[in-house]
Amino acid sequence: GGVIRLSPPEILLLGFALLCAAGALLLWLPGSATRPLAWHEALFTATSAVTVTGLSVIDVGKDLTFIGQLVVLVLIQVGGLGFMTFAALTVLLLGTRLPLSQQNLVREALGEIAFSDIRDLVKLVIAFAFITEAIGTLLLACHWVPEQGLAMGLWHSLFHAVSAFNNAGFSTFSDSLIQEVGNPLVNATVTLMFIVGGLGFVVVSDLYRHRRWSRLAMQTKVVLLATFWLNVIATAILLGLEWSNPGTLGGLEDGFAKLQAAWFQAVTPRTAGFNTLEIGALTDASTLLVMVLMFIGAGSSSTASGIKITTFVVLLLTARAFYRNTEHPTAFGRSIPQETVIKAITVALAGVLLVVLTLFGLTITDGEQSFLDLAFETVSAFGTVGLSRGITSDLSLPGQFLLGLTMLLGRVGPLSVGYFLATRQARGVRYARGEIQIG
Amino acid sequence: GGVIRLSPPEILLLGFALLCAAGALLLWLPGSATRPLAWHEALFTATSAVTVTGLSVIDVGKDLTFIGQLVVLVLIQVGGLGFMTFAALTVLLLGTRLPLSQQNLVREALGEIAFSDIRDLVKLVIAFAFITEAIGTLLLACHWVPEQGLAMGLWHSLFHAVSAFNNAGFSTFSDSLIQEVGNPLVNATVTLMFIVGGLGFVVVSDLYRHRRWSRLAMQTKVVLLATFWLNVIATAILLGLEWSNPGTLGGLEDGFAKLQAAWFQAVTPRTAGFNTLEIGALTDASTLLVMVLMFIGAGSSSTASGIKITTFVVLLLTARAFYRNTEHPTAFGRSIPQETVIKAITVALAGVLLVVLTLFGLTITDGEQSFLDLAFETVSAFGTVGLSRGITSDLSLPGQFLLGLTMLLGRVGPLSVGYFLATRQARGVRYARGEIQIG
Ligand SMILES: [K+]
Ligand SMILES: [K+]
Repeated sequence: GGVIRLSPPEILLLGFALLCAAGALLLWLPGSATRPLAWHEALFTATSAVTVTGLSVIDVGKDLTFIGQLVVLVLIQVGGLGFMTFAALTVLLLGTRLPLSQQNLVREALGEIAFSDIRDLVKLVIAFAFITEAIGTLLLACHWVPEQGLAMGLWHSLFHAVSAFNNAGFSTFSDSLIQEVGNPLVNATVTLMFIVGGLGFVVVSDLYRHRRWSRLAMQTKVVLLATFWLNVIATAILLGLEWSNPGTLGGLEDGFAKLQAAWFQAVTPRTAGFNTLEIGALTDASTLLVMVLMFIGAGSSSTASGIKITTFVVLLLTARAFYRNTEHPTAFGRSIPQETVIKAITVALAGVLLVVLTLFGLTITDGEQSFLDLAFETVSAFGTVGLSRGITSDLSLPGQFLLGLTMLLGRVGPLSVGYFLATRQARGVRYARGEIQIG
Repeated sequence: GGVIRLSPPEILLLGFALLCAAGALLLWLPGSATRPLAWHEALFTATSAVTVTGLSVIDVGKDLTFIGQLVVLVLIQVGGLGFMTFAALTVLLLGTRLPLSQQNLVREALGEIAFSDIRDLVKLVIAFAFITEAIGTLLLACHWVPEQGLAMGLWHSLFHAVSAFNNAGFSTFSDSLIQEVGNPLVNATVTLMFIVGGLGFVVVSDLYRHRRWSRLAMQTKVVLLATFWLNVIATAILLGLEWSNPGTLGGLEDGFAKLQAAWFQAVTPRTAGFNTLEIGALTDASTLLVMVLMFIGAGSSSTASGIKITTFVVLLLTARAFYRNTEHPTAFGRSIPQETVIKAITVALAGVLLVVLTLFGLTITDGEQSFLDLAFETVSAFGTVGLSRGITSDLSLPGQFLLGLTMLLGRVGPLSVGYFLATRQARGVRYARGEIQIG
């Protein structure tokens, strides 16, 4: 008695909150910043780093010292990896405590991972992250070391590699990667890093173990195909919408540069958050598309957030099943069970609710900002994307607090919804059915 | 063979489309308008009337002759009553064709109505509508006959009574009911009319037959309580947000006038569409609240649209069940079955999708309009509300066509989703379960 029992998602939320507080304290110390930071600036930056969002009220490149930037980097790494391992760890943690029927439910919900113990799993996740980040650092160094010298070049490369793999979107440059808009090496490396980071550990380990398409799990196929098509379609639409917009693609000299910029802008919303174009200069149509992509996000148990790409695909498949009048949605010759469909629509709808409530709050605390700007920053915070139309640092304190809270909930929320639905227990009390008209 | 078989929702959609075309033709005739209407103006007006939306690209009070206004009134009446009876008729139509198991499903889905034959039901619906409209006309005439003379006063009263009961929102005055912002009789009569029209025939007939709270169906209790609380809460929030806004409540002299205006503005979005305040002058926070209310709408099988208030309540109850970790949401000691929950989230999500797609289309066709204006008109069209920030007549032709289509789908869509889900048949083919991570 007397012991508070927390569910895994509650532990995660509490852990993230504590990490934010500790990070804020470190950033607030005099050695971390080139100018005295206000406590709320330190807290917002730490929260943004731990939740790998990248929205910022300070200029990470100018306002932070090397030590301050290192703190941000460590917070990103711990936040990103912590979340990634957590989803997988939950399986093992639950496996020892729950009755067998529910073990299977949770195991299925979080992917069929069978590792002998916790340490194995954590080691694998860390190895995956560090190896990818090392490769990324080396590739980026080929560009930045010649440009900035060995020490600074390596630092910029390491920072961007870690920030990209963890889908954090923080940059040591004040204008993110706008200077590199036409650089094929930086474009390719950074986008590949955050796409790989966004696939999710379950998908990557399945790919690593099976390699042949026919042997891959349905989840892996769905995530790979959906990632491919979403990126291709979004690139094509953005090329069309922005081709002659002087503020974005229209300002670039040749077709290859436009293609690179459109590709980068198409893949960064789910949920990397770097930008090579001025976000505020996009047309309203592109802005709405980016908001939808930010809401979707990338893979489960990855460094990315949003409602997750699997959730989005299950919604699409459910809609298809609906119009074909079949009972269950199917993919690759397998039917998607009803509880998965329910999970998906619950996660999506909870996301919509969180976004609408946050936006309502912001229209009250910061009513003088434009509605589109507020809506954009809200979705960016929910998807922990970090793309910004430039108003985050102008927001009132309550507004910034609201955005910070949305980052935390956006990061932990979708996993929690899935977890709670998976472990839901039937209660003893039974009620008669009550009929009600819908629609 | 050779006969095209349509499902009831397809019949409804086709019938509405034909009615729009016929109405457009009538409005386009010289006798209907005081100036030559373009074909697209006539079509938009007819579509807006048939779907009881009220968005307008013309000034119904000035651009239409008495005959033209009469055409609009008939279109409203046929569109409103047609939809209202349709939901109930479906039960009877299906009852004779489907196997017993599915009869029950549909019967439950559309409310436990047991009428001996179709004519009885239609008669009852028409009697309910005409009696309510007659009472409304008489009450309104007490104000408008002294002001405008017998003929014009009666006409204005009849038009507003029919328009209010059918939640159409069309007015013979260019500025809707802004002149009557402080008139208790008009405020009370009009809001009461559209609230009663928005309860739905199933609720009204249950109220008429049972009268005592304890004997009412769960559906009736839910609709009544939710209508009451939504109206009270929205009024309170709008009072708070607009109290000192000089463009709206701040411009009114006394507290009673402010209370009336806040009440009217709180109840009109679900989905009446009259206004006594300048919609464009509301704060962004109020505008977002109004958009949420427009999305929700009122009762099933009523003259109102939106995702419906029952859908909204089921979503709330599901969220509550989720946080309490119980298997089924419950209300009034009854559990809401899983298929109802699925219907509710499907309807809500389909609504979100339709709104986002329409808005994306409008940002392309009418990118020069403000994002909030476009978003507002989109939700207003989806919920067939008719409140406007004043840009509908400035939209491009493709933009107007898109809004018209959204009105039609917004009117027929939610019912169709419910219908298709209720009559869904299990197919012979069986697939293995495919597991996928969500969130
Ligand atoms: K990010
Ligand atoms: K209306």
